[in-house]
Amino acid sequence: MTSTTGGPSGPASALDPRIAARLKRSADGLLPAIAQQYDTGEVLMLGWMDDEALHRTLTTGRCTYWSRSRREYWVKGDTSGHTQQVKSVALDCDADTVLVKVDQAGAACHTGDRTCFDADVLPLGE
Amino acid sequence: MTSTTGGPSGPASALDPRIAARLKRSADGLLPAIAQQYDTGEVLMLGWMDDEALHRTLTTGRCTYWSRSRREYWVKGDTSGHTQQVKSVALDCDADTVLVKVDQAGAACHTGDRTCFDADVLPLGE
Repeated sequence: MTSTTGGPSGPASALDPRIAARLKRSADGLLPAIAQQYDTGEVLMLGWMDDEALHRTLTTGRCTYWSRSRREYWVKGDTSGHTQQVKSVALDCDADTVLVKVDQAGAACHTGDRTCFDADVLPLGE
Repeated sequence: MTSTTGGPSGPASALDPRIAARLKRSADGLLPAIAQQYDTGEVLMLGWMDDEALHRTLTTGRCTYWSRSRREYWVKGDTSGHTQQVKSVALDCDADTVLVKVDQAGAACHTGDRTCFDADVLPLGE
């Protein structure tokens, strides 16, 4: 069963209930999900997942997020071709953050940069 | 001036107002902050920063977070000794996420693991 509802899915998702029971979601039902290039270690981007997005990421091999602005599921690369093939998925020690190691095709960032963190380095100092 | 208030600081922080004006904070005034080991690329942990935590991270050389559970600033390593020396700080393309490259002393995770993502790898597949 795949949820087609328009909002974060919570326990209505097809996610394994043993995993769902452990998740500590934000007030809006989401977890931050870090996408990292599996071989180079580059941090590519941060997206958001509800239970169903995590389920789809675990079971389809394609990284899937919940778009907070568009309020819909978003399979990375469906529009751009810049897919993320899932290599591994881990929760952190508090079960409130996801780390997805992926093989990123092309640019992860919608600007065309390889990662979303390439363009805006802040100055350090006093 | 350093904020000593008990909540996310928003524009009351000493953060450079040109940076503060660009931030897209969550409803609770925070940004997720990814800490990455600068040389190995390991994703160590995810914490949360308000404007003042970002300011302190940029200006003190020590990674500083806002603890959502304790509702206080938290200089990584002050209790454990497992400090994070700041190497670089970047915003993402939407200015809603921070990537801090650090030199992590010892274990990043309170469990003693090197990273917070070492212990809970989820199964892939149908």
